[in-house]
Amino acid sequence: MKVAVYRQAHFNAAHRLYNKNWDEEKNERVFGLCNNPNFHGHNYQLIVKVVGEVDPQTGYVIDLKRLKNIIEKEVLIRFDHKNLNLDTEEFKDRIPTAENIAIVIHGLIRQHLGKQYDLQIKLYETDRNMVEYPV
Amino acid sequence: MKVAVYRQAHFNAAHRLYNKNWDEEKNERVFGLCNNPNFHGHNYQLIVKVVGEVDPQTGYVIDLKRLKNIIEKEVLIRFDHKNLNLDTEEFKDRIPTAENIAIVIHGLIRQHLGKQYDLQIKLYETDRNMVEYPV
Amino acid sequence: MKVAVYRQAHFNAAHRLYNKNWDEEKNERVFGLCNNPNFHGHNYQLIVKVVGEVDPQTGYVIDLKRLKNIIEKEVLIRFDHKNLNLDTEEFKDRIPTAENIAIVIHGLIRQHLGKQYDLQIKLYETDRNMVEYPV
Amino acid sequence: MKVAVYRQAHFNAAHRLYNKNWDEEKNERVFGLCNNPNFHGHNYQLIVKVVGEVDPQTGYVIDLKRLKNIIEKEVLIRFDHKNLNLDTEEFKDRIPTAENIAIVIHGLIRQHLGKQYDLQIKLYETDRNMVEYPV
Amino acid sequence: MKVAVYRQAHFNAAHRLYNKNWDEEKNERVFGLCNNPNFHGHNYQLIVKVVGEVDPQTGYVIDLKRLKNIIEKEVLIRFDHKNLNLDTEEFKDRIPTAENIAIVIHGLIRQHLGKQYDLQIKLYETDRNMVEYPV
Amino acid sequence: MKVAVYRQAHFNAAHRLYNKNWDEEKNERVFGLCNNPNFHGHNYQLIVKVVGEVDPQTGYVIDLKRLKNIIEKEVLIRFDHKNLNLDTEEFKDRIPTAENIAIVIHGLIRQHLGKQYDLQIKLYETDRNMVEYPV
Repeated sequence: MKVAVYRQAHFNAAHRLYNKNWDEEKNERVFGLCNNPNFHGHNYQLIVKVVGEVDPQTGYVIDLKRLKNIIEKEVLIRFDHKNLNLDTEEFKDRIPTAENIAIVIHGLIRQHLGKQYDLQIKLYETDRNMVEYPV
Repeated sequence: MKVAVYRQAHFNAAHRLYNKNWDEEKNERVFGLCNNPNFHGHNYQLIVKVVGEVDPQTGYVIDLKRLKNIIEKEVLIRFDHKNLNLDTEEFKDRIPTAENIAIVIHGLIRQHLGKQYDLQIKLYETDRNMVEYPV
Repeated sequence: MKVAVYRQAHFNAAHRLYNKNWDEEKNERVFGLCNNPNFHGHNYQLIVKVVGEVDPQTGYVIDLKRLKNIIEKEVLIRFDHKNLNLDTEEFKDRIPTAENIAIVIHGLIRQHLGKQYDLQIKLYETDRNMVEYPV
Repeated sequence: MKVAVYRQAHFNAAHRLYNKNWDEEKNERVFGLCNNPNFHGHNYQLIVKVVGEVDPQTGYVIDLKRLKNIIEKEVLIRFDHKNLNLDTEEFKDRIPTAENIAIVIHGLIRQHLGKQYDLQIKLYETDRNMVEYPV
Repeated sequence: MKVAVYRQAHFNAAHRLYNKNWDEEKNERVFGLCNNPNFHGHNYQLIVKVVGEVDPQTGYVIDLKRLKNIIEKEVLIRFDHKNLNLDTEEFKDRIPTAENIAIVIHGLIRQHLGKQYDLQIKLYETDRNMVEYPV
Repeated sequence: MKVAVYRQAHFNAAHRLYNKNWDEEKNERVFGLCNNPNFHGHNYQLIVKVVGEVDPQTGYVIDLKRLKNIIEKEVLIRFDHKNLNLDTEEFKDRIPTAENIAIVIHGLIRQHLGKQYDLQIKLYETDRNMVEYPV
């Protein structure tokens, strides 16, 4: 009896999109307003999906309190109220697009889950834009 | 031309999470606040997904009025404004976690749909916690 | 420069609506499904509105961390994952309708705020039903 | 590194559901209120999902400004503030159910995307009814 | 102890904005896309606010089941799945803007409520546009 | 016949809360995480409320296209994808709390509206925190 469980969390961060191998003109053309050198920011809404068997003793796929703690430790403390470009190791050399943030968060949470679980990350950058990894 | 259609419904219920084969101390440790012997409750938001071919005569996968009636009869009348542990047959011997509620609802609706349809249940227990069955 | 600030919180609780001075038949007629003797429950969404002058030193009407702490201590610890009828002093002799819950929460928070602040409570019992006190 | 990106848009339109090969009585029985000959209408919420590899130069699956322009040109200009039955070529001979609208929108956007992308359309007709194509 | 209670409902309707005393060119200039002679439509979200004293016997301001019945009879049956311009008496000679629809709904519900109640109507025409009457 | 109309808009911005007359220790104590010197950010959701008489010729309080243009020119171009502290004149010497941003936006829009209109600004900084000016 495989079931998927979802848990939400939120963090607020500043970022800037630019590729340091490109000149300013090309960064402007590709990233537009998102290339503002003084940064802009978002309320990121994170949805973590874990798929696994329902434990007949508890009726749970996973204890959501444990999942909540993993998200807090690996994602919220690391990224909440931070500048993704300046304050984090993960985006020193990686452009902090929603796509890349989702891939990074997947790696950070994946290491805490046993092999019996599948993991997927959904990340809303705004109410209108969302990404999902893996597909 | 297979299309998925989704229909939402809501019900409000009380429940308590505990395993009657465990002592109080273990129930407390595993289920925490959800083990309150006097019960607590939720506004459950149910989303029923049905996948099938579009009928060229109607442009419908399934008549949503028929699906709405099935949900009303099998889910809302049975669970709305009820105590899942005390008032229902389904959770006399099954812990009413969101996972188990979704599996039970799947069985109740499945019997009314022909084999040409696939069925999936999504169930929000709170705005932040959701489950999905089957995966 | 008076500004209103709003802060949201959530709690999940079981309740039952009945008037102990009435017989069962009248309780049934007035409260219908909400009179289930085994209780049902809700995800209550609470919105606390505080009106006051903006402090020119901080740009704040009130430190929302302080307001969050008041809500946590006075409302969430008291009511979250509780049976309002059985587990709380406040509803031993008061019917736990949304109206009465809002009035009670207003009293619990009011005592922590100085006279320079106005306070209003909004309480969603479901997505479709909400109350507000005072008007 | 395949990632899914989602982009939202909205349009408001009038429509009527009826099958011109059927008599009035059968249209009434099958489509009920939706068969009103004077039309009714909806705020359609469209979610476009595009799956592809993340470009290591940009961190993007697809430039969302480009996707937004495709949606505007192919969907919003064509359907927003229109009567789907009377004002559009697409629904002259096709019943404008949510299922059929999703299939049509899929075709209109698909032609603008390279083969490296997968495309899925989600369409909310109301907050409670949604369709998805392909499944 | 005055409390405000809110109840939500939904209806889907077609409409067209135009002033029959103006020529086509002026209607076009003032109402733009909303002047489409073949109509367009919306999912209207209605919120009915009733203010009154809490009844100490019930803990209710008003029985929401009664309010729900009034809304159903006076608003939903009249306007749901209708063309406001063609199918209703109320908008034969009144432009069906959100403002006017709210004023009309206020009159329809007001007559069913005793003088001890204040009534306010909120009406969302889209997620982004809302009106409120009286102020 | 006075009616209130509401119009929504969104902008994404970076900011930092600190008082330049205070030392670092006091800024840290008062503003906590919001004092991050590298900035963090938000998706601000703006709701503009305009109250006025319904024009009997149009059925409108105000042409929402005109209001939308004012919001775009005065708020979105000025603040969207900006660093409020570094990129704007308005917050060079004013702490960009939600309270102060709402007061500033009120002034920017107020000048475009005739005296027959009342104006109120609501600003969500996150889904859980909102401010309103004037009260």
